[in-house]
Amino acid sequence: MPAEPAARPTIYDVAQRAGVSKSLVSLVLRDAPHVSEARRRAVHEAIEELGYRPSRAASALASQRTRSVGVLIDDFRNPWFVELLAGLRSVLDPAGYTSSVADLTLEAVSGRNPVDGFLAMHVDGLVVAGEPQPGLLRGLAVPTVVAGVRDVGPGLAADVVAGDDERGGELATRHLLDLGHARIAHLTGSGGPAARRRRGYERTMRAAGLEPLVTGAGGTAEDDGYAAALAALDAAPGLTAFVAGNDVMAVGALAALREHGLSVPHDVSVVGYDDSPLAAYRYLALTSVAGHSHEVGAESATTLLARLGDPEAPRRRQLLEPSLVVRGSTAPP
Amino acid sequence: MPAEPAARPTIYDVAQRAGVSKSLVSLVLRDAPHVSEARRRAVHEAIEELGYRPSRAASALASQRTRSVGVLIDDFRNPWFVELLAGLRSVLDPAGYTSSVADLTLEAVSGRNPVDGFLAMHVDGLVVAGEPQPGLLRGLAVPTVVAGVRDVGPGLAADVVAGDDERGGELATRHLLDLGHARIAHLTGSGGPAARRRRGYERTMRAAGLEPLVTGAGGTAEDDGYAAALAALDAAPGLTAFVAGNDVMAVGALAALREHGLSVPHDVSVVGYDDSPLAAYRYLALTSVAGHSHEVGAESATTLLARLGDPEAPRRRQLLEPSLVVRGSTAPP
Repeated sequence: MPAEPAARPTIYDVAQRAGVSKSLVSLVLRDAPHVSEARRRAVHEAIEELGYRPSRAASALASQRTRSVGVLIDDFRNPWFVELLAGLRSVLDPAGYTSSVADLTLEAVSGRNPVDGFLAMHVDGLVVAGEPQPGLLRGLAVPTVVAGVRDVGPGLAADVVAGDDERGGELATRHLLDLGHARIAHLTGSGGPAARRRRGYERTMRAAGLEPLVTGAGGTAEDDGYAAALAALDAAPGLTAFVAGNDVMAVGALAALREHGLSVPHDVSVVGYDDSPLAAYRYLALTSVAGHSHEVGAESATTLLARLGDPEAPRRRQLLEPSLVVRGSTAPP
Repeated sequence: MPAEPAARPTIYDVAQRAGVSKSLVSLVLRDAPHVSEARRRAVHEAIEELGYRPSRAASALASQRTRSVGVLIDDFRNPWFVELLAGLRSVLDPAGYTSSVADLTLEAVSGRNPVDGFLAMHVDGLVVAGEPQPGLLRGLAVPTVVAGVRDVGPGLAADVVAGDDERGGELATRHLLDLGHARIAHLTGSGGPAARRRRGYERTMRAAGLEPLVTGAGGTAEDDGYAAALAALDAAPGLTAFVAGNDVMAVGALAALREHGLSVPHDVSVVGYDDSPLAAYRYLALTSVAGHSHEVGAESATTLLARLGDPEAPRRRQLLEPSLVVRGSTAPP
């Protein structure tokens, strides 16, 4: 890949020449109010002297802004996104930005690219909450933050804010080990976060000198959790605990256990993931790994606003530490 | 309020004068393709002769269209909307329309009007899925369909597509009566649909010569169902069945019953409402009233597209018949 020609001036060069911050250059480029005439003139002179040409993203910014953000959710059926959205709004709303939401799963059924719809609405930026389909975001000119997934594939110019899923899988497994469990199975799903949660489980089991047992991988729905739990009970009849790929799969596992006449947590402990509204329902009371979706959402919004203010800043990747919320579905064996 | 001057010509007058349908006038007004030059000229002549001025909505249509629809959801935390959205998309997608979604509850927290965001995005129309806050939609110039709620208040120029909630309350109660229950309590929530479901329950109980018992009305969340169920158990210790205002409240009731050492359906039967993904989880297996959200969504989209094609057609109000999905949470007493 050829290197960027060294001679091409950047927004940083303009800022340095004009003796102002790069944020101020940004403000001048999009003709924002509250910039003094003197500083505005200094920036324009620096631009002319250096022959600076704003990037495509910066040009888009300089044109009419709608102060709106498009949010792509991977599946409305999975309630993990509720807190993430609340976190996003907690930052976007005070900043005067509207957000609207589309569902990748529903859109995938129709075979259309949901990003096109947002571009037609002239959104200022995108937040992709979940795993983008390959190619979905390739070549996008609109500032984008991927929230909740750390591996976004090559060639995607996006900032990333995600929970540390591998660490989460480790926390869930460690909790069960600390309670005294040794025969712990993992119910895995499809996709990048599931693979990382699985890796955290496997690593923790092996570090404790135990053999991992993983079933599933068909999907991440209730059905999948049910089938994976039945497969695990079949493969290892004496197991005493499950780490599920998410809360919905954990609810599927509860049904499989009841069918086997096993009670939770008396006979078998179950840990979910996402700390979704489901986990908090009294009737389910799932111990669950909190990926801190609210914080991931808030940090994603902050990152997007920073990107809008400074389109040429280096890409950022932030990982947030998960924690465990202990409820009634786990106990000593 | 002064009456509309009788002399003002309508799109119907233009259609009659030009000898074409009003849909064709609409097509000409927004400069649609596939209209013959002769008919286009006839319409323009009629417009000129009559001095017809398109309404504000029609003018908006004549200007640039984004082929996008804004969907307002009352609360993402309540999963009833998932099927409704799928139904909406099943009609909007093939018609080439994008849809994006905002949450009224999240927006209410911020104190902003979520409709403004959609208008800034230049959506062609709105679907309000749930109960609009008073005044939210007053004076809107954009074509609007209210989905899922039949009472939208006075002064709102919207089409309505809703499930028949009163009939649904009746179905749930009738199912329990047919099983042999007589001591049936209703757990009610807040809002118009909850009030109609309650009315269906009360009417059916009285028709059977039984005294209704209603608790709740604080809200429609899991907490509210839990509290309402505890209150009902307190008020009528020997009751054998609950009709819950929705599935989430029914899950709250399951926890209250377990705390009282009562098993479902052996000791007490529970009927939910919405037939949401929750109800179908094997571990919960709730008998639930299906409001046919998918069909309400599809019919709402069809209605909106018809409205876009003919902004001056009379307002429509359609009620869809609910049905009962029987699962494992109900049995004879």
